[in-house]
Amino acid sequence: MENFIFQNPVKLIMGRGMIAQLAKEIPADKRVMITFGGGSVKKNGVYDQVKAALKDYFTVEFWGIEPNPAIETLRKAIALGKEQKVDYLLAVGGGSVIDGTKLIAAGLLYEGDAWDLVLAGRAARKTVPLATVLTLPATGSEMNNGAVISRHETKEKFPFTGNYPMFSILDPEVTFTLPPHQVACGLSDTFVHVMEQYITTPGQSRVMDRWAEGILQTLAEIAPKIRENQHDYQLMADFMLSATMALNGFIAMGVSQDWATHMMGHELTALHGLTHGHTLAIVLPATLRVLRDAKGDKLVQYGERVWGITSGTRDERIDEAIRRTEEFFRSLGLTTRLHEENIGQETIEEIERRFNARKAAYGENGNVTGAVARQILESAL
Amino acid sequence: MENFIFQNPVKLIMGRGMIAQLAKEIPADKRVMITFGGGSVKKNGVYDQVKAALKDYFTVEFWGIEPNPAIETLRKAIALGKEQKVDYLLAVGGGSVIDGTKLIAAGLLYEGDAWDLVLAGRAARKTVPLATVLTLPATGSEMNNGAVISRHETKEKFPFTGNYPMFSILDPEVTFTLPPHQVACGLSDTFVHVMEQYITTPGQSRVMDRWAEGILQTLAEIAPKIRENQHDYQLMADFMLSATMALNGFIAMGVSQDWATHMMGHELTALHGLTHGHTLAIVLPATLRVLRDAKGDKLVQYGERVWGITSGTRDERIDEAIRRTEEFFRSLGLTTRLHEENIGQETIEEIERRFNARKAAYGENGNVTGAVARQILESAL
Repeated sequence: MENFIFQNPVKLIMGRGMIAQLAKEIPADKRVMITFGGGSVKKNGVYDQVKAALKDYFTVEFWGIEPNPAIETLRKAIALGKEQKVDYLLAVGGGSVIDGTKLIAAGLLYEGDAWDLVLAGRAARKTVPLATVLTLPATGSEMNNGAVISRHETKEKFPFTGNYPMFSILDPEVTFTLPPHQVACGLSDTFVHVMEQYITTPGQSRVMDRWAEGILQTLAEIAPKIRENQHDYQLMADFMLSATMALNGFIAMGVSQDWATHMMGHELTALHGLTHGHTLAIVLPATLRVLRDAKGDKLVQYGERVWGITSGTRDERIDEAIRRTEEFFRSLGLTTRLHEENIGQETIEEIERRFNARKAAYGENGNVTGAVARQILESAL
Repeated sequence: MENFIFQNPVKLIMGRGMIAQLAKEIPADKRVMITFGGGSVKKNGVYDQVKAALKDYFTVEFWGIEPNPAIETLRKAIALGKEQKVDYLLAVGGGSVIDGTKLIAAGLLYEGDAWDLVLAGRAARKTVPLATVLTLPATGSEMNNGAVISRHETKEKFPFTGNYPMFSILDPEVTFTLPPHQVACGLSDTFVHVMEQYITTPGQSRVMDRWAEGILQTLAEIAPKIRENQHDYQLMADFMLSATMALNGFIAMGVSQDWATHMMGHELTALHGLTHGHTLAIVLPATLRVLRDAKGDKLVQYGERVWGITSGTRDERIDEAIRRTEEFFRSLGLTTRLHEENIGQETIEEIERRFNARKAAYGENGNVTGAVARQILESAL
């Protein structure tokens, strides 16, 4: 086990009808800006529930935080929030709305351009408190302090560390009507979040290994059932809780982390607009193929505990574990190869160039450089 | 999944040499009372590390918080703390020292007798901040807000809800020299904490089930290794993390809880002074025997996933799961029957009387009354 410090202050409020708790959690005198993505919350009843709960509050609405929230949009939200003197933010949406709102929370108390904060990688010291009502299980943003912000004009996408939400409300019923592709990307995103914290150095923590495997086993079990019936409360609750637990620090105590797959995935989104969870389904199997030696012990353990692979030579077991991983993503209805998305050598070279320019050295061993990223992406062709 | 609200603010600081972090965490102007149990911390180096870290602070020491911390002792600590105007508490010890210090934290800001707070079951609104340096993995008190306080004159023992520690420091090296019986009781306590949150209603949460099983599998794996070598850092880190994760709410989200075994165990401690973890090893197998029908589905799942029991009729599998549970406790060197501790029918009748007097209805189904407790304890004879 590596030494670690863990703390996660987020209050998680989960279950049917819990959106009504909003008024118990937000102080009555707050000037609340509610941030949204597109209009799906008006169709699934979430908007009405939120407005009903906050009927006695001063509220202002900001609409249109897009997938891969863009600084260009968030600047407008910050301007509106400053103008309206808001002192509380409520993000109602998926990971993009929540991520974007984390930057708004920092930008509201910052004099300069909020892109400075993204380039700095973290919020200035003071931020406006924020809370969330989650509508799409995927990124875990509802229970961590991370965000990823894009800049359209330069096709860039960078991680940003903001503040934790004060609380997050998760009602599994809001997921019943999600488009199946979004559910597939959410399952993929959750799966890869766990893998980034698990398929690394062996033997660091029996408990963390088993908790990571517990989420992966759950996803493997529920994914086909969700495709059959997205209205099963228990299934969607398991999905929603898995997504939150996959990236809130609970499975990261004392263990190495990778995140190279994410860094490559971010570039694919920045350059081609692919949905985040989908990029991971393409990159992860290739990462495992190229780094199979360094990750071998963990891949064998993963194959056995998650996919029940108990026979064959070590190499055969590793092959099969990687094959089952790619098959899992395909079973979600996602493509897993770059050529299927008409992405080729040119993009790979651009990503290598970007990695080299920032002297990238990702992965738990710090050895995923531009050249290694190129190998991985070529394996994903 | 049941609706739930989860929040745990404790900062967990874990690893080698982390006691030195104390001075980073406690504000420099605080008047700190350090609370201790007996003198073991003077032998294992913990006392010296704590004093070195706090050399620039005002500190006052309170020694002698005993196993099953007694109100009679804690009143003295509260009096000393008031006299010295302490405004920060640092508990250095195991669960008893930490539990007792939670009551001190409440008592310091309460005018009346602190036993009032125990009878009320919870702290008054304001408490003095407290932190911990854990020396014995077992109760999980370092990362929750619970405590159990005893009263010697009446042989009573009651749960009390205090405040969460601000932070807790866990250095696995401090466990290397623990007496093997304390390690055995700590393993037993941890195992039963998980069981109280797991062997209940089936089908509530796949993730929580697997996280509970992950801790149980870890304990089953490490217990025999720890008996061979208590100086293995990785093993003791797994034990320490398991104990903390077993009772900090992380495996309790959206699932039913039992705690009937604990309530009977508390009475055995109050009446006979048995170590808490040991009482649980005696009561739990009997609870499972008597409630085998209500708990059957979970017992089958537990038998399969934790002990690898995959053949036999349902009844045979349940029998074997319970047998393996009792065998696990015996493998720790603990007795698992009341007669082995010279406890007989008289005690059982007294516990039934106490349960009836307080109209007990424990367990996830609220059906463990005095009469059922009697059945369970008779099964433990």
